[in-house]
Amino acid sequence: MGRALDQARLARAAAGELARAGAHLRSEAIASAARAVARARDGIIAANADDMAEGRAKGLPEPLLDRLLLDEARVSGIVSAMGEVSRQADPVGLVVGGSTLENGLRIEQVSVPLGVVAIIYEARPNVTADSIALCLRSGNACVLRGGSAARRSCAAIAEACREGVFEAGIAKDVIQLVDSDDRADAVELMGATGIVDVLIPRGGASLIKTCVEQSKVPVIETGTGNCHIYLEKSADAEMACAICVNAKCQRPGVCNAAESLLVDEVAAERLLPPVLADLAAAGVALVGDARARAIAQSVGVPMGEATEADWGTEYLDLKMSVACVADTEAAIAHINRYGTHHSEAILTASYAAAEAFLAGVDAAAVYVNASTRFTDGGVFGLGAEIGISTQKLHARGPMGAAALTTTKYLVRGEGQVR
Amino acid sequence: MGRALDQARLARAAAGELARAGAHLRSEAIASAARAVARARDGIIAANADDMAEGRAKGLPEPLLDRLLLDEARVSGIVSAMGEVSRQADPVGLVVGGSTLENGLRIEQVSVPLGVVAIIYEARPNVTADSIALCLRSGNACVLRGGSAARRSCAAIAEACREGVFEAGIAKDVIQLVDSDDRADAVELMGATGIVDVLIPRGGASLIKTCVEQSKVPVIETGTGNCHIYLEKSADAEMACAICVNAKCQRPGVCNAAESLLVDEVAAERLLPPVLADLAAAGVALVGDARARAIAQSVGVPMGEATEADWGTEYLDLKMSVACVADTEAAIAHINRYGTHHSEAILTASYAAAEAFLAGVDAAAVYVNASTRFTDGGVFGLGAEIGISTQKLHARGPMGAAALTTTKYLVRGEGQVR
Repeated sequence: MGRALDQARLARAAAGELARAGAHLRSEAIASAARAVARARDGIIAANADDMAEGRAKGLPEPLLDRLLLDEARVSGIVSAMGEVSRQADPVGLVVGGSTLENGLRIEQVSVPLGVVAIIYEARPNVTADSIALCLRSGNACVLRGGSAARRSCAAIAEACREGVFEAGIAKDVIQLVDSDDRADAVELMGATGIVDVLIPRGGASLIKTCVEQSKVPVIETGTGNCHIYLEKSADAEMACAICVNAKCQRPGVCNAAESLLVDEVAAERLLPPVLADLAAAGVALVGDARARAIAQSVGVPMGEATEADWGTEYLDLKMSVACVADTEAAIAHINRYGTHHSEAILTASYAAAEAFLAGVDAAAVYVNASTRFTDGGVFGLGAEIGISTQKLHARGPMGAAALTTTKYLVRGEGQVR
Repeated sequence: MGRALDQARLARAAAGELARAGAHLRSEAIASAARAVARARDGIIAANADDMAEGRAKGLPEPLLDRLLLDEARVSGIVSAMGEVSRQADPVGLVVGGSTLENGLRIEQVSVPLGVVAIIYEARPNVTADSIALCLRSGNACVLRGGSAARRSCAAIAEACREGVFEAGIAKDVIQLVDSDDRADAVELMGATGIVDVLIPRGGASLIKTCVEQSKVPVIETGTGNCHIYLEKSADAEMACAICVNAKCQRPGVCNAAESLLVDEVAAERLLPPVLADLAAAGVALVGDARARAIAQSVGVPMGEATEADWGTEYLDLKMSVACVADTEAAIAHINRYGTHHSEAILTASYAAAEAFLAGVDAAAVYVNASTRFTDGGVFGLGAEIGISTQKLHARGPMGAAALTTTKYLVRGEGQVR
């Protein structure tokens, strides 16, 4: 038995107080935690410098080091994001339904916190603060287990938040950071049925797969995004260039970046040359099927041979696969087969093709004539996000504080029996 | 590899057609399936007679045989329940949210079917028809795996429904019955990630535990109900007698029946004697703590000694545990510790105690001065139900067709990039 289960029990014991605290006190607790993070800025940056030094010594890749880094601007960003959540509408205690039965029973369905939310994540220290803010907002105690590369940074942020909520009059125990790199702790959280109400993995595909397959606690699957841009035969070439470059290159390491380009074969010779040229100019490595390679070769753009595995790969890098498809139906079939149900786009001038794609593609967000990069809690108006659900149960797409609530039926009577 | 995975693939392939069919055609498919069940009545009753004969030969307990039995009245009940679902509002294609962003993107959140719903259940043949009707209503293909004791009955009902949907112009493959008693088939369904979207176990605690612990496919936990009636010190004795007898005895084998009676210790001597006498007169076997036993003995009601295990036991029988508690807080703590988060009731004349109980008890349905027996999809106005969720994710409490949908964001633009 590691510490994680003990910490989850502490969170469970403290959760009720937070649920009953009321919207105003929850807002104040988040604001107070944000102020505490601001006060602790120098200590957090120092802790992060130690994590960075260890990461460099271990040879962590540069994009990972970039995600790990905290400087003054990033700590200010964390503080300001927490401030925003403190001003958000409270999602707890809303009456979402109800009725009075013939026998006089009054049924009221109200939103309530889930209870204890566990979040297992990797080396992004800001996830610590976002998760704490959203769990406080939704009245949930949280158990956080960050990646070992960010241990000191996460601990410094969590400790500041614990001080902050305490100053607002809430028990510190509503925030639990499992400060360990022992895998047994993650396994304990996955098995903590009855103590942890939901487990949200945030990170790479292998972390998420492990949680989905091994957890006995209900999991919300997040994040993996093998997103496609489909150029239907009537697509505008200029728009195609702009959206493909944006969706692939604006931030290649995120889940809503595009990984695969599909093009209607009858329009491939019109659309692929300018799009591939722009992608190549932006530094994108391309792989494709025979037809795409022939076109690429004809215009002097290098393109490797795509294997079957490429169609299912989330590169998270400046790399993209390219396939020609027979028509919109074939594009939908390809996406539903190889995609991860995250964000998918069609570029078209055809009303019928747009509507067929919107109806036929099985994904959290389906776009017409726009970049897949918009799938984001902030963009969608949820404030911060606890992740982007790619599963269908409970929540789908960007999840804000409301996704961390459930409902409860309250039934008032005068002695009714059945 | 068994047949279950192949059947799930057939369901998946057929699911899209049903999702696109539209509300009217889905209604017609359910009505047509109901008519086909009505036509097949004699064959269904004959198949059931074979199941009953085998069950009797194997010595199945009487309550199980009663649940298995289909006669003309019960088949008519099945047909009429399907008819009701065919007339229900369609839960698919509803616009449940949306907005227009500053950049002009129009975001629309619409309800869509889950896709393929797998249901693993025990020896209640009517679950076959209910599940088919609710899955058709919500645009989902279904994979059903009933208990082996009801194999012939379930197969006859499912086959009639397949005929019925076919006559309405929908592919038979949207309904799959895994006609097997091989455990490997259930295991295949639990592992069918990407093919089955959700698994709903309906049945006893051990079936549900197996699915929750072993399934890689998301599970909705249903049904187990260790429900309590708490007699607060101001409870009316007459109401207490009526509600306790109703909640315990009206149908002891169902999940919303009460299993445990808690009483405020300062009022135990006033409340327990009449309540225990009525329960004993109704044939309820009682076990209790020392205080409850002393009171029972003083009024000549037999009561055994409750063990720790009794507090956590769902008897599903004419048996009840009885405990004295210090106050409402202690009652809430006992229920949150030993209950299954299903249905819990307080009987009280105190506004403060009622509100504290409603807020403090962590359950799908919390009652004041009413029997726990009302937690039911029909009673709550959902029409038929696919089960009563005792988990917090996705759905909580009775689940109708709407609980078998998810949402999808449709985003329309004119070339927007980020």
